[in-house]
Amino acid sequence: MEDPIGELVRLLSRLPGIGERTAIRLTHHVLGQEADYATALGKVLSELHQRVHPCAQCGNYATEALCRICADATRDGSRVCVVARPPDVGAIERSGGYRGHYFVLHKLLSPLDGVGPDELNIAALMARVEAGTIKEVILATPLNVEGEATALYLARVLKPHGVRCSRIASGLPHGGELEYTDQVTLGRALEGRRDL
Amino acid sequence: MEDPIGELVRLLSRLPGIGERTAIRLTHHVLGQEADYATALGKVLSELHQRVHPCAQCGNYATEALCRICADATRDGSRVCVVARPPDVGAIERSGGYRGHYFVLHKLLSPLDGVGPDELNIAALMARVEAGTIKEVILATPLNVEGEATALYLARVLKPHGVRCSRIASGLPHGGELEYTDQVTLGRALEGRRDL
Repeated sequence: MEDPIGELVRLLSRLPGIGERTAIRLTHHVLGQEADYATALGKVLSELHQRVHPCAQCGNYATEALCRICADATRDGSRVCVVARPPDVGAIERSGGYRGHYFVLHKLLSPLDGVGPDELNIAALMARVEAGTIKEVILATPLNVEGEATALYLARVLKPHGVRCSRIASGLPHGGELEYTDQVTLGRALEGRRDL
Repeated sequence: MEDPIGELVRLLSRLPGIGERTAIRLTHHVLGQEADYATALGKVLSELHQRVHPCAQCGNYATEALCRICADATRDGSRVCVVARPPDVGAIERSGGYRGHYFVLHKLLSPLDGVGPDELNIAALMARVEAGTIKEVILATPLNVEGEATALYLARVLKPHGVRCSRIASGLPHGGELEYTDQVTLGRALEGRRDL
Protein backbone atom coordinates (compact mmCIF):
# COMPACT_ATOMS: atom_id res chain seq x y z
CA MET A 1 0.00 0.00 0.00
CA GLU A 2 2.32 2.68 -1.27
CA ASP A 3 -0.27 5.33 -2.09
CA PRO A 4 -3.05 5.50 0.53
CA ILE A 5 -5.16 7.92 -1.54
CA GLY A 6 -5.08 5.69 -4.63
CA GLU A 7 -5.72 2.64 -2.46
CA LEU A 8 -8.77 4.27 -0.83
CA VAL A 9 -10.15 5.26 -4.25
CA ARG A 10 -9.62 1.71 -5.50
CA LEU A 11 -11.36 0.12 -2.49
CA LEU A 12 -14.29 2.56 -2.53
CA SER A 13 -14.77 1.95 -6.29
CA ARG A 14 -15.54 -1.67 -5.47
CA LEU A 15 -18.71 -0.68 -3.59
CA PRO A 16 -21.98 -1.06 -5.53
CA GLY A 17 -23.11 2.12 -7.29
CA ILE A 18 -19.79 3.89 -6.64
CA GLY A 19 -17.68 4.52 -9.73
CA GLU A 20 -14.19 5.93 -9.85
CA ARG A 21 -15.30 9.58 -9.97
CA THR A 22 -17.51 9.19 -6.91
CA ALA A 23 -14.73 7.29 -5.13
CA ILE A 24 -12.36 10.19 -5.82
CA ARG A 25 -14.94 12.67 -4.53
CA LEU A 26 -15.53 10.63 -1.36
CA THR A 27 -11.79 10.22 -0.77
CA HIS A 28 -11.23 13.97 -1.00
CA HIS A 29 -14.20 14.54 1.29
CA VAL A 30 -12.71 12.22 3.91
CA LEU A 31 -9.30 13.89 3.55
CA GLY A 32 -10.98 17.26 4.09
CA GLN A 33 -12.69 16.14 7.32
CA GLU A 34 -11.09 15.97 10.75
CA ALA A 35 -8.98 12.82 11.19
CA ASP A 36 -11.51 11.58 13.79
CA TYR A 37 -14.02 10.71 11.10
CA ALA A 38 -11.67 8.53 9.02
CA THR A 39 -10.37 6.90 12.20
CA ALA A 40 -13.87 6.07 13.44
CA LEU A 41 -14.93 4.72 10.05
CA GLY A 42 -11.68 2.76 9.79
CA LYS A 43 -12.14 1.25 13.24
CA VAL A 44 -15.70 0.08 12.70
CA LEU A 45 -14.78 -1.44 9.31
CA SER A 46 -11.66 -3.16 10.62
CA GLU A 47 -13.59 -4.78 13.45
CA LEU A 48 -16.81 -5.42 11.53
CA HIS A 49 -16.45 -9.07 10.58
CA GLN A 50 -14.89 -9.86 13.92
CA ARG A 51 -17.78 -8.39 15.92
CA VAL A 52 -20.67 -9.40 13.69
CA HIS A 53 -21.61 -13.09 13.27
CA PRO A 54 -24.80 -15.02 12.56
CA CYS A 55 -27.43 -15.23 15.30
CA ALA A 56 -27.48 -18.80 16.65
CA GLN A 57 -31.26 -18.96 16.32
CA CYS A 58 -32.22 -17.05 13.17
CA GLY A 59 -29.04 -16.56 11.12
CA ASN A 60 -29.41 -12.76 11.01
CA TYR A 61 -26.40 -10.57 11.88
CA ALA A 62 -25.75 -10.38 15.62
CA THR A 63 -23.11 -9.05 17.98
CA GLU A 64 -24.15 -11.34 20.85
CA ALA A 65 -25.04 -15.06 20.66
CA LEU A 66 -28.61 -14.06 19.79
CA CYS A 67 -29.58 -11.09 17.62
CA ARG A 68 -31.57 -8.22 19.13
CA ILE A 69 -34.87 -9.56 17.81
CA CYS A 70 -34.40 -13.15 19.04
CA ALA A 71 -33.20 -11.81 22.40
CA ASP A 72 -36.23 -9.51 22.77
CA ALA A 73 -38.62 -11.25 25.20
CA THR A 74 -41.51 -8.98 24.17
CA ARG A 75 -41.60 -10.46 20.67
CA ASP A 76 -43.81 -13.35 19.64
CA GLY A 77 -41.59 -16.39 19.11
CA SER A 78 -44.50 -18.52 17.87
CA ARG A 79 -44.42 -16.74 14.50
CA VAL A 80 -41.34 -16.87 12.28
CA CYS A 81 -40.92 -14.87 9.10
CA VAL A 82 -38.51 -16.57 6.67
CA VAL A 83 -36.50 -14.18 4.47
CA ALA A 84 -33.68 -14.63 1.98
CA ARG A 85 -31.18 -12.00 3.15
CA PRO A 86 -30.38 -9.89 6.24
CA PRO A 87 -31.47 -6.55 4.68
CA ASP A 88 -34.95 -8.08 4.21
CA VAL A 89 -35.29 -8.19 8.02
CA GLY A 90 -34.69 -4.45 8.19
CA ALA A 91 -37.20 -3.85 5.39
CA ILE A 92 -39.96 -5.75 7.23
CA GLU A 93 -39.04 -4.13 10.56
CA ARG A 94 -39.42 -0.68 8.97
CA SER A 95 -42.93 -1.64 7.77
CA GLY A 96 -43.72 -1.59 11.49
CA GLY A 97 -46.47 -4.20 11.71
CA TYR A 98 -44.58 -7.37 12.54
CA ARG A 99 -43.67 -8.42 16.09
CA GLY A 100 -42.64 -12.07 15.55
CA HIS A 101 -39.25 -13.67 14.94
CA TYR A 102 -37.29 -14.09 11.69
CA PHE A 103 -35.26 -16.77 9.99
CA VAL A 104 -32.64 -15.74 7.42
CA LEU A 105 -31.86 -18.38 4.79
CA HIS A 106 -28.87 -16.54 3.19
CA LYS A 107 -29.55 -18.52 0.00
CA LEU A 108 -32.48 -19.70 -2.08
CA LEU A 109 -33.10 -22.92 -3.99
CA SER A 110 -31.32 -22.55 -7.32
CA PRO A 111 -30.46 -25.83 -9.07
CA LEU A 112 -28.42 -23.99 -11.71
CA ASP A 113 -26.15 -22.57 -8.99
CA GLY A 114 -25.95 -25.93 -7.25
CA VAL A 115 -28.24 -24.97 -4.36
CA GLY A 116 -30.60 -27.88 -3.75
CA PRO A 117 -32.75 -28.65 -0.68
CA ASP A 118 -29.74 -30.10 1.18
CA GLU A 119 -27.80 -26.83 0.77
CA LEU A 120 -30.55 -24.79 2.48
CA ASN A 121 -29.38 -24.47 6.04
CA ILE A 122 -32.72 -24.80 7.84
CA ALA A 123 -31.63 -27.09 10.68
CA ALA A 124 -32.14 -24.40 13.36
CA LEU A 125 -35.64 -23.66 12.01
CA MET A 126 -36.60 -27.34 11.83
CA ALA A 127 -35.41 -27.90 15.39
CA ARG A 128 -37.77 -25.18 16.65
CA VAL A 129 -40.64 -26.54 14.54
CA GLU A 130 -40.06 -30.06 15.83
CA ALA A 131 -39.93 -28.75 19.39
CA GLY A 132 -43.47 -27.44 18.77
CA THR A 133 -42.79 -23.79 19.71
CA ILE A 134 -43.72 -22.38 16.27
CA LYS A 135 -47.36 -21.94 15.19
CA GLU A 136 -46.95 -20.02 11.94
CA VAL A 137 -44.18 -19.59 9.39
CA ILE A 138 -44.57 -16.61 7.05
CA LEU A 139 -42.65 -17.28 3.85
CA ALA A 140 -41.28 -13.87 2.78
CA THR A 141 -38.72 -14.97 0.20
CA PRO A 142 -38.69 -12.82 -2.97
CA LEU A 143 -41.44 -13.13 -5.56
CA ASN A 144 -39.05 -14.47 -8.21
CA VAL A 145 -38.41 -18.02 -9.43
CA GLU A 146 -35.90 -18.95 -6.70
CA GLY A 147 -37.94 -17.28 -3.95
CA GLU A 148 -41.18 -19.00 -5.03
CA ALA A 149 -39.48 -22.40 -5.34
CA THR A 150 -37.94 -22.00 -1.89
CA ALA A 151 -41.28 -20.97 -0.36
CA LEU A 152 -43.07 -23.97 -1.89
CA TYR A 153 -40.33 -26.33 -0.73
CA LEU A 154 -40.38 -24.97 2.83
CA ALA A 155 -44.20 -25.17 2.97
CA ARG A 156 -43.94 -28.82 1.93
CA VAL A 157 -41.46 -29.79 4.63
CA LEU A 158 -43.00 -27.63 7.39
CA LYS A 159 -46.73 -28.36 7.01
CA PRO A 160 -46.50 -32.07 8.02
CA HIS A 161 -45.33 -30.78 11.43
CA GLY A 162 -48.66 -29.02 11.90
CA VAL A 163 -47.26 -25.53 11.31
CA ARG A 164 -49.39 -22.97 9.47
CA CYS A 165 -47.44 -21.77 6.42
CA SER A 166 -48.36 -18.48 4.75
CA ARG A 167 -46.88 -16.59 1.81
CA ILE A 168 -46.63 -12.79 1.58
CA ALA A 169 -49.15 -11.32 -0.89
CA SER A 170 -48.31 -10.52 -4.50
CA GLY A 171 -50.13 -7.62 -6.15
CA LEU A 172 -49.93 -3.98 -7.12
CA PRO A 173 -47.64 -1.76 -5.03
CA HIS A 174 -49.05 1.15 -3.01
CA GLY A 175 -50.04 3.85 -5.50
CA GLY A 176 -49.72 1.39 -8.40
CA GLU A 177 -51.52 2.09 -11.68
CA LEU A 178 -53.14 -0.84 -13.48
CA GLU A 179 -52.02 0.49 -16.86
CA TYR A 180 -48.34 0.29 -15.94
CA THR A 181 -48.42 -3.03 -14.08
CA ASP A 182 -46.93 -6.11 -15.74
CA GLN A 183 -49.33 -8.92 -16.60
CA VAL A 184 -47.98 -11.47 -14.11
CA THR A 185 -48.43 -9.04 -11.21
CA LEU A 186 -51.90 -8.07 -12.41
CA GLY A 187 -52.85 -11.74 -12.76
CA ARG A 188 -51.66 -12.40 -9.21
CA ALA A 189 -53.47 -9.34 -7.89
CA LEU A 190 -56.75 -10.63 -9.38
CA GLU A 191 -56.12 -14.15 -8.15
CA GLY A 192 -55.34 -12.89 -4.66
CA ARG A 193 -58.42 -10.59 -4.46
CA ARG A 194 -60.07 -10.28 -1.06
CA ASP A 195 -63.74 -9.83 -0.17
CA LEU A 196 -64.71 -6.37 1.02
CA MET B 1 -19.91 1.69 19.89
CA GLU B 2 -22.40 -0.93 20.93
CA ASP B 3 -23.86 -1.76 17.51
CA PRO B 4 -21.20 -1.86 14.76
CA ILE B 5 -23.78 -2.19 11.98
CA GLY B 6 -25.73 0.88 13.12
CA GLU B 7 -22.47 2.76 13.67
CA LEU B 8 -21.24 1.95 10.14
CA VAL B 9 -24.58 3.08 8.66
CA ARG B 10 -24.38 6.32 10.66
CA LEU B 11 -20.80 7.08 9.57
CA LEU B 12 -21.43 6.24 5.91
CA SER B 13 -24.55 8.47 5.91
CA ARG B 14 -22.29 11.43 6.64
CA LEU B 15 -20.56 11.09 3.26
CA PRO B 16 -21.78 13.48 0.54
CA GLY B 17 -24.50 12.03 -1.68
CA ILE B 18 -25.00 9.00 0.57
CA GLY B 19 -28.34 8.90 2.38
CA GLU B 20 -29.45 6.41 5.00
CA ARG B 21 -30.86 3.90 2.51
CA THR B 22 -27.63 3.84 0.49
CA ALA B 23 -25.61 3.58 3.71
CA ILE B 24 -27.68 0.53 4.72
CA ARG B 25 -27.16 -1.03 1.27
CA LEU B 26 -23.39 -0.40 1.41
CA THR B 27 -23.17 -1.79 4.95
CA HIS B 28 -24.92 -5.00 3.93
CA HIS B 29 -22.68 -5.22 0.87
CA VAL B 30 -19.56 -4.97 3.05
CA LEU B 31 -20.98 -7.55 5.49
CA GLY B 32 -21.60 -9.90 2.55
CA GLN B 33 -18.00 -9.62 1.29
CA GLU B 34 -15.00 -11.50 2.63
CA ALA B 35 -13.62 -9.92 5.83
CA ASP B 36 -10.44 -8.98 3.89
CA TYR B 37 -12.25 -6.17 2.11
CA ALA B 38 -13.58 -4.44 5.24
CA THR B 39 -10.21 -4.92 6.94
CA ALA B 40 -8.31 -3.36 4.02
CA LEU B 41 -10.74 -0.44 3.79
CA GLY B 42 -10.61 0.00 7.57
CA LYS B 43 -6.82 0.00 7.59
CA VAL B 44 -6.40 2.59 4.86
CA LEU B 45 -9.01 4.86 6.50
CA SER B 46 -7.51 4.51 9.98
CA GLU B 47 -4.05 5.43 8.73
CA LEU B 48 -5.15 8.01 6.17
CA HIS B 49 -4.62 11.27 8.02
CA GLN B 50 -1.45 9.93 9.60
CA ARG B 51 0.13 9.02 6.26
CA VAL B 52 -1.12 11.93 4.17
CA HIS B 53 0.08 15.49 4.83
CA PRO B 54 0.61 18.63 2.74
CA CYS B 55 3.51 18.69 0.29
CA ALA B 56 6.17 21.10 1.63
CA GLN B 57 6.39 22.84 -1.74
CA CYS B 58 2.89 22.93 -3.25
CA GLY B 59 0.45 22.13 -0.43
CA ASN B 60 -1.11 19.17 -2.30
CA TYR B 61 -1.57 15.86 -0.49
CA ALA B 62 1.67 13.91 -0.16
CA THR B 63 2.96 10.80 1.59
CA GLU B 64 6.61 11.93 1.44
CA ALA B 65 8.02 15.42 2.15
CA LEU B 66 7.29 16.34 -1.48
CA CYS B 67 4.27 15.16 -3.47
CA ARG B 68 4.78 12.95 -6.53
CA ILE B 69 4.52 15.87 -8.92
CA CYS B 70 7.00 18.15 -7.12
CA ALA B 71 9.38 15.19 -6.72
CA ASP B 72 9.19 14.32 -10.44
CA ALA B 73 12.38 15.70 -12.04
CA THR B 74 10.92 15.35 -15.56
CA ARG B 75 8.31 18.04 -14.85
CA ASP B 76 8.78 21.70 -15.68
CA GLY B 77 9.23 23.59 -12.38
CA SER B 78 9.30 26.98 -14.12
CA ARG B 79 5.51 26.87 -14.60
CA VAL B 80 3.17 26.69 -11.62
CA CYS B 81 -0.58 26.18 -11.88
CA VAL B 82 -2.43 27.64 -8.87
CA VAL B 83 -5.61 25.80 -7.89
CA ALA B 84 -8.06 26.09 -5.00
CA ARG B 85 -8.35 22.48 -3.84
CA PRO B 86 -6.46 19.16 -4.10
CA PRO B 87 -9.06 17.47 -6.38
CA ASP B 88 -8.44 20.26 -8.93
CA VAL B 89 -4.88 18.93 -9.38
CA GLY B 90 -6.27 15.52 -10.36
CA ALA B 91 -8.74 17.16 -12.76
CA ILE B 92 -5.97 19.05 -14.58
CA GLU B 93 -3.69 15.99 -14.57
CA ARG B 94 -6.45 13.95 -16.25
CA SER B 95 -6.73 16.58 -19.00
CA GLY B 96 -3.26 15.32 -19.93
CA GLY B 97 -1.70 18.45 -21.41
CA TYR B 98 0.07 20.00 -18.42
CA ARG B 99 3.59 19.05 -17.35
CA GLY B 100 4.41 21.87 -14.90
CA HIS B 101 4.06 22.16 -11.12
CA TYR B 102 1.02 23.06 -8.99
CA PHE B 103 0.27 25.20 -5.98
CA VAL B 104 -2.80 24.38 -3.88
CA LEU B 105 -4.25 27.34 -1.96
CA HIS B 106 -6.79 25.31 0.10
CA LYS B 107 -8.83 28.53 0.44
CA LEU B 108 -9.93 31.47 -1.67
CA LEU B 109 -10.32 35.15 -0.84
CA SER B 110 -13.71 35.52 0.81
CA PRO B 111 -14.11 38.61 2.99
CA LEU B 112 -17.52 37.39 4.24
CA ASP B 113 -15.88 34.23 5.63
CA GLY B 114 -13.01 36.23 7.07
CA VAL B 115 -10.46 35.15 4.46
CA GLY B 116 -8.47 38.21 3.42
CA PRO B 117 -5.09 38.42 1.62
CA ASP B 118 -3.21 37.68 4.88
CA GLU B 119 -5.10 34.41 5.35
CA LEU B 120 -4.02 33.08 1.93
CA ASN B 121 -1.04 30.89 2.69
CA ILE B 122 1.16 31.73 -0.31
CA ALA B 123 4.52 32.03 1.46
CA ALA B 124 5.98 28.91 -0.22
CA LEU B 125 4.88 30.20 -3.65
CA MET B 126 6.27 33.70 -3.04
CA ALA B 127 9.60 32.23 -1.91
CA ARG B 128 9.97 30.37 -5.24
CA VAL B 129 8.94 33.47 -7.19
CA GLU B 130 11.45 35.62 -5.30
CA ALA B 131 14.17 33.03 -5.90
CA GLY B 132 13.50 33.57 -9.62
CA THR B 133 12.83 29.92 -10.52
CA ILE B 134 9.28 30.52 -11.77
CA LYS B 135 8.57 32.02 -15.20
CA GLU B 136 4.79 31.60 -15.45
CA VAL B 137 1.95 31.22 -12.97
CA ILE B 138 -1.30 29.86 -14.42
CA LEU B 139 -4.20 30.99 -12.24
CA ALA B 140 -6.69 28.08 -12.32
CA THR B 141 -8.91 29.05 -9.40
CA PRO B 142 -12.65 28.54 -10.06
CA LEU B 143 -14.54 30.93 -12.34
CA ASN B 144 -16.74 32.19 -9.49
CA VAL B 145 -16.55 35.39 -7.41
CA GLU B 146 -14.00 34.06 -4.87
CA GLY B 147 -11.90 32.35 -7.54
CA GLU B 148 -11.80 35.46 -9.75
CA ALA B 149 -10.95 37.75 -6.82
CA THR B 150 -8.15 35.43 -5.74
CA ALA B 151 -6.75 35.22 -9.28
CA LEU B 152 -6.77 39.03 -9.62
CA TYR B 153 -5.10 39.44 -6.23
CA LEU B 154 -2.38 36.89 -7.01
CA ALA B 155 -1.69 38.47 -10.42
CA ARG B 156 -1.27 41.82 -8.68
CA VAL B 157 1.29 40.53 -6.14
CA LEU B 158 3.14 38.22 -8.57
CA LYS B 159 3.55 40.41 -11.66
CA PRO B 160 5.89 42.97 -9.98
CA HIS B 161 8.36 40.08 -9.61
CA GLY B 162 8.52 39.70 -13.40
CA VAL B 163 6.42 36.54 -13.47
CA ARG B 164 4.01 35.99 -16.36
CA CYS B 165 0.51 35.49 -14.92
CA SER B 166 -2.20 33.81 -17.02
CA ARG B 167 -5.80 32.89 -16.28
CA ILE B 168 -7.52 29.74 -17.57
CA ALA B 169 -10.04 30.49 -20.33
CA SER B 170 -13.75 30.97 -19.73
CA GLY B 171 -16.17 29.94 -22.48
CA LEU B 172 -18.49 27.23 -23.69
CA PRO B 173 -17.73 23.67 -22.60
CA HIS B 174 -16.85 20.99 -25.15
CA GLY B 175 -20.07 20.14 -27.03
CA GLY B 176 -21.80 23.21 -25.60
CA GLU B 177 -24.86 24.66 -27.35
CA LEU B 178 -25.13 28.44 -27.56
CA GLU B 179 -28.88 28.30 -26.92
CA TYR B 180 -28.41 26.67 -23.50
CA THR B 181 -25.41 28.69 -22.36
CA ASP B 182 -25.87 31.34 -19.68
CA GLN B 183 -25.30 34.97 -20.72
CA VAL B 184 -22.19 35.53 -18.59
CA THR B 185 -20.42 32.52 -20.11
CA LEU B 186 -21.47 33.53 -23.61
CA GLY B 187 -20.24 37.07 -23.01
CA ARG B 188 -16.89 35.74 -21.84
CA ALA B 189 -16.65 33.34 -24.79
CA LEU B 190 -17.10 36.29 -27.19
CA GLU B 191 -14.69 38.48 -25.28
CA GLY B 192 -12.07 35.70 -25.24
CA ARG B 193 -12.41 34.90 -28.97
CA ARG B 194 -9.25 33.86 -30.80
CA ASP B 195 -8.17 34.50 -34.39
CA LEU B 196 -8.34 31.51 -36.71
